[in-house]
Amino acid sequence: MANRKIRMGMVGGGRDAFIGAVHRMAAAIDGEIELVCGAFSSNPEKSRLSGEDFFLDSSRVYGSFEEMIKTEATLPPSVRMDFVSIVTPNHFHFAPAKMALEYGFHVVCDKPLCFSMEEAHELAELVAKTGLIFALTHNYTGYPMVKQARAMIERGDFGNIRKVVVEYPQGWLSTRIEASEQKQAAWRTDPTKSGKAGSVGDIGTHAENLAEYITGLKINELCADVTTFVEGRLLDDDANILLRFENGAKGILHCSQICAGEENDLNIRVWGELGGFAWRQMEPNSLIIKWLDKPTETLRTGGANLTATAQAATRIPAGHPEGYLEAFANIYRNVARVIRARLKGENPNPLYLDFPSVEDGIRGMNFIDKVIESGNQGATWVKV
Amino acid sequence: MANRKIRMGMVGGGRDAFIGAVHRMAAAIDGEIELVCGAFSSNPEKSRLSGEDFFLDSSRVYGSFEEMIKTEATLPPSVRMDFVSIVTPNHFHFAPAKMALEYGFHVVCDKPLCFSMEEAHELAELVAKTGLIFALTHNYTGYPMVKQARAMIERGDFGNIRKVVVEYPQGWLSTRIEASEQKQAAWRTDPTKSGKAGSVGDIGTHAENLAEYITGLKINELCADVTTFVEGRLLDDDANILLRFENGAKGILHCSQICAGEENDLNIRVWGELGGFAWRQMEPNSLIIKWLDKPTETLRTGGANLTATAQAATRIPAGHPEGYLEAFANIYRNVARVIRARLKGENPNPLYLDFPSVEDGIRGMNFIDKVIESGNQGATWVKV
Amino acid sequence: MANRKIRMGMVGGGRDAFIGAVHRMAAAIDGEIELVCGAFSSNPEKSRLSGEDFFLDSSRVYGSFEEMIKTEATLPPSVRMDFVSIVTPNHFHFAPAKMALEYGFHVVCDKPLCFSMEEAHELAELVAKTGLIFALTHNYTGYPMVKQARAMIERGDFGNIRKVVVEYPQGWLSTRIEASEQKQAAWRTDPTKSGKAGSVGDIGTHAENLAEYITGLKINELCADVTTFVEGRLLDDDANILLRFENGAKGILHCSQICAGEENDLNIRVWGELGGFAWRQMEPNSLIIKWLDKPTETLRTGGANLTATAQAATRIPAGHPEGYLEAFANIYRNVARVIRARLKGENPNPLYLDFPSVEDGIRGMNFIDKVIESGNQGATWVKV
Amino acid sequence: MANRKIRMGMVGGGRDAFIGAVHRMAAAIDGEIELVCGAFSSNPEKSRLSGEDFFLDSSRVYGSFEEMIKTEATLPPSVRMDFVSIVTPNHFHFAPAKMALEYGFHVVCDKPLCFSMEEAHELAELVAKTGLIFALTHNYTGYPMVKQARAMIERGDFGNIRKVVVEYPQGWLSTRIEASEQKQAAWRTDPTKSGKAGSVGDIGTHAENLAEYITGLKINELCADVTTFVEGRLLDDDANILLRFENGAKGILHCSQICAGEENDLNIRVWGELGGFAWRQMEPNSLIIKWLDKPTETLRTGGANLTATAQAATRIPAGHPEGYLEAFANIYRNVARVIRARLKGENPNPLYLDFPSVEDGIRGMNFIDKVIESGNQGATWVKV
Repeated sequence: MANRKIRMGMVGGGRDAFIGAVHRMAAAIDGEIELVCGAFSSNPEKSRLSGEDFFLDSSRVYGSFEEMIKTEATLPPSVRMDFVSIVTPNHFHFAPAKMALEYGFHVVCDKPLCFSMEEAHELAELVAKTGLIFALTHNYTGYPMVKQARAMIERGDFGNIRKVVVEYPQGWLSTRIEASEQKQAAWRTDPTKSGKAGSVGDIGTHAENLAEYITGLKINELCADVTTFVEGRLLDDDANILLRFENGAKGILHCSQICAGEENDLNIRVWGELGGFAWRQMEPNSLIIKWLDKPTETLRTGGANLTATAQAATRIPAGHPEGYLEAFANIYRNVARVIRARLKGENPNPLYLDFPSVEDGIRGMNFIDKVIESGNQGATWVKV
Repeated sequence: MANRKIRMGMVGGGRDAFIGAVHRMAAAIDGEIELVCGAFSSNPEKSRLSGEDFFLDSSRVYGSFEEMIKTEATLPPSVRMDFVSIVTPNHFHFAPAKMALEYGFHVVCDKPLCFSMEEAHELAELVAKTGLIFALTHNYTGYPMVKQARAMIERGDFGNIRKVVVEYPQGWLSTRIEASEQKQAAWRTDPTKSGKAGSVGDIGTHAENLAEYITGLKINELCADVTTFVEGRLLDDDANILLRFENGAKGILHCSQICAGEENDLNIRVWGELGGFAWRQMEPNSLIIKWLDKPTETLRTGGANLTATAQAATRIPAGHPEGYLEAFANIYRNVARVIRARLKGENPNPLYLDFPSVEDGIRGMNFIDKVIESGNQGATWVKV
Repeated sequence: MANRKIRMGMVGGGRDAFIGAVHRMAAAIDGEIELVCGAFSSNPEKSRLSGEDFFLDSSRVYGSFEEMIKTEATLPPSVRMDFVSIVTPNHFHFAPAKMALEYGFHVVCDKPLCFSMEEAHELAELVAKTGLIFALTHNYTGYPMVKQARAMIERGDFGNIRKVVVEYPQGWLSTRIEASEQKQAAWRTDPTKSGKAGSVGDIGTHAENLAEYITGLKINELCADVTTFVEGRLLDDDANILLRFENGAKGILHCSQICAGEENDLNIRVWGELGGFAWRQMEPNSLIIKWLDKPTETLRTGGANLTATAQAATRIPAGHPEGYLEAFANIYRNVARVIRARLKGENPNPLYLDFPSVEDGIRGMNFIDKVIESGNQGATWVKV
Repeated sequence: MANRKIRMGMVGGGRDAFIGAVHRMAAAIDGEIELVCGAFSSNPEKSRLSGEDFFLDSSRVYGSFEEMIKTEATLPPSVRMDFVSIVTPNHFHFAPAKMALEYGFHVVCDKPLCFSMEEAHELAELVAKTGLIFALTHNYTGYPMVKQARAMIERGDFGNIRKVVVEYPQGWLSTRIEASEQKQAAWRTDPTKSGKAGSVGDIGTHAENLAEYITGLKINELCADVTTFVEGRLLDDDANILLRFENGAKGILHCSQICAGEENDLNIRVWGELGGFAWRQMEPNSLIIKWLDKPTETLRTGGANLTATAQAATRIPAGHPEGYLEAFANIYRNVARVIRARLKGENPNPLYLDFPSVEDGIRGMNFIDKVIESGNQGATWVKV
């Protein structure tokens, strides 16, 4: 019975939402998940119209997440959704996530996890208690070449890691577009919807997650110079941060949304005793490997001799570029396979357990807290 | 009634097939198509197991394409497939395509169209007679930056076109891997399955289609030096071709599967009186524009001020790379939308009529014929 | 009489010296300077052999800089050197520079200027008093595209500058090669020869000079995390530094000699309100310009419509790459032309006054002091 | 006595000449050659003023090459020039080269060698008879990474060579600038000064020389589609050429001066049985090596483990870019060292015999002849 598509319900992500469409495409690519229901908007009419856009049965398009969760919980197991995908602005992650877990649904949640450390810990406890699957969409770690780099560090190819530089420059908030009708800008720069951080929460947490995932090292201390460049803006739009890692490695993380002309240039470079690497999200299928005393090598998605994790995250042969949606899809596909394994009473292939968890969410929330704390103190060192 | 997913049946593409999986993912991404049935292999047991992999109802997994087409034609309109996707080796395109058209199903077919000019013309006549939709998956023209370049030429940004260089080097057939159990290599180098051409049919036709699509110009004459480098191989694995276009432009097309170390480096450069451009499939989101007397510009998928066709082919903001599957998906999405418009009795948005047709298939077949003819004559000039 | 080559005497730079050979080639390229004498080594025999290598008259190859300066000062004006080029390790800049100035010779000196702020100020006073020319070879600012970027900021193309990221990663000191016979490594890691800083003095000062030159902005405050990664090394080999500029711009400077696999990857990115740019020393002929709402542009050495300073620093047409030596040569050529103008009693073309001065040297020495001070305090903020 | 700079006299290259300045800088960089005399223009006054620009003794600035050669031949050996550098337009290579050889002077001559095969053979015979050194400035083979690639092919790293693609697109003649006062364009498009070919002679010969030098293979046959795109132009401005090499390798060479927006993009790619490489003149310090079954490698000028010829052509450490002038200088430096060895009665180091010869000049002249012959016949195959 269990060899079936996994069924997804969505909270948020109606017509015109950016990240909701991304989640739907990511969930759809591999043909293992089907969208069966949703509460796509706090506006019931908009939710209804969105459901039509997505070709859903109108009986399963809900006016609120509470209604969706309660109603779905009453449907027969052969019909009801298996998991909830939460794609709302930050201030609206906690409540549906909590309720979904309480009603026994697995959760995929956009980042950052929630609004406060208290909420974060409450969710983590609920995950622990229920044993349900909780995935956080730090999607950039879904790229095959990120997984390759992580595996190479883990097996010691580069020796002890000494230096990490992770950057996330964007330019789209170079002017005060939140003052006009730009919906994406509006909530991200509104403390009541985004939380205490602007750029640091929106993209800085991706950089932090990437750095820790790829190196396998935790950040111990940081010193953050946090700035709001655009007059009238209520949250930070730039941060330059010094990092110290648990093993003695030093690092730099900077994120910005006022780097005029930049698109979405998340990138990371790491150096160890024996070599290092560079990876750039905008050309994600190349991993440049530098060695102390050998020519620079370029590893490629789909190429020969990659690690098992990189291979498992790849769909097509080298030279056929996989992109953002495919990396994002790796989270959904892995979650679907782990859920399916549970449905079948099997142990999941450990390769599929590779997705960001509620623990990553807690680290992200803590990172935001500490960066803002350091920034508020004029950029002093703070323990993480 | 018509606001529904479009229903796809597949011929070929069972477990382990490369291009079948690509077609399924491309069809799935946008959530507008659902795979409802298939004849995935000439081996019925393999077809059955493949159907399980794809979570299909076993009643709609067929042992042959004939069975599928005949049976589906008897199902009620609310259930039966809308179109057939044909993803078999070249020698197996014609029969299912013809039968699908005869039974009233739209067709999406992998390239090259078929085996001979006779077959090609027969299919074209059938398409004309039935008025059904027929799309050929020259997927590389699905990239937004290809559409941008085409639109810029069309509106005269570069003036009269003078020179075209299109290249398609691959390296995977540098040794005689068809002699081992490499299935992808085996049929492509077998004249009974691939046709009269090897590399020229497999990838040369993509290059030809890209050059004609992007420039809007037809090739009038060619001179082809066609080579089989790998000993024992039965078909060409390399061709260097001089081109002359209808407007007097000159060009070069070369394709190869023995460029050791190359992945899938389809690329094109075009120069007109006022400027030119370069586009490379392996980094498909950048279009490099060169001007006679201004700085070089880089246009980017999702960037500002792109043409309507480029925008319509883009899903996510600039800096979030879209890749091979998304470009491929643009064909499927457009086909789905045109079918849906018909179901609704509406005229389709002209933007969605932008996919390769049976006419492109005829041009491709003719290109193969003429290249092989020129090659067999020692590389003489041949009218196209 | 004055239309003649300018005559150079050299201190240091004998056989096998790296930077001495660079200075000689840089001085030679444009055919405006002739090497006439030298004290190439503290070892008189080595100085003599070096003079033979450079095809000098043996009577003008000296055993010490004192001998050279004293003797040359007694030669007739039609014969004696016009300026002294100092290419010794850091601890040996001050004495010859001071003596040369005192004897009325212009000076070109390698960086950093000297050993202490006291020495630096003494030299600056001497330059002011004598009115002689003093050039410091912060050669990276000699690149045409650096001058182009500076001019674009100056004329306001990018609006107010907000963010600066300047990086200088090298990898050649990833292991303790100073323990073997590597002469270049030995003096650079020896506090008695290099001064209080290792990587910060050797390359960090280049990054600081580049950032201030290109932006026209002074660094006001910094916070430096300074590290010695290689066990047993006596000076820093890595520094991560937060910057604050006089206009409120924020920045990052990091320099390292333990980034295994990196060559000499000095690069800088700057963003203002309206756009920004990226420049990379290892591909110095491209300047990537990003705009808030226009396509990215690539300006090129020798290209059309560049500023006067960029044009004056370029020798050959676009597409014929100029490199490190040509950028370095721009300092020498400018110094030669200013000296020649003086010899002719003319005012020099202001374009040729564009070379780093003793004031840049003072800023560099101060930067070293403040970075080490911050580092010693555990990376606290320090006023510059 | 012989440890001295080698003395150069120049024919052509006065004020404002492009290539003359390049030759002077290339000869000067390494400090082994000194310009002692010249006949810089057919206009004696312009020659005189040019001599002043170059700081020459007026007694050695001549009004004609005949005067220069005759007069210099009468000067004592300790004073007179050692070799003549010929930097005039094509139609003016033969006469001074012939006369210089007849008077016992070595020759460095710009390319193409001369005007006809008869002249070419006459020069070759004279070189053979006199035993003098004759270097042709196919400067692009002077790049270290070109020498590295050649050495790797020679030692068999890539196995038997199968395919060669060499390109030389420029855009500066996209419009009829020769009709205005553009001096560089005027002579290059004038059959009485340039010879029977335009782009083919000016840049096509560089591409041909590069392909043969780097592969060590001779072109046996070619088929050339030669075009004049700009109305009113008297010589070709574009050629697309199919190549067949002596070992069975196939190739493409195309050169153009109407590729609007291109600077000077000479580049070559070669593939053998085991791998291949790509090299691009505009970023000359990287050599991209592709392998059948290993990651792509990037070799770098100055990097570790390069061949002796590449090392001998490099001046500064990796990451300090060397450019066009340094590559050009490698010809001059090698010529100077071979002359110096002769003066000393020594055998030159074989590494310094690595410069293009009169034989390369003959091959270039023959290439021009055969391309134009093929082109005139409508692009037929011609034996070389």
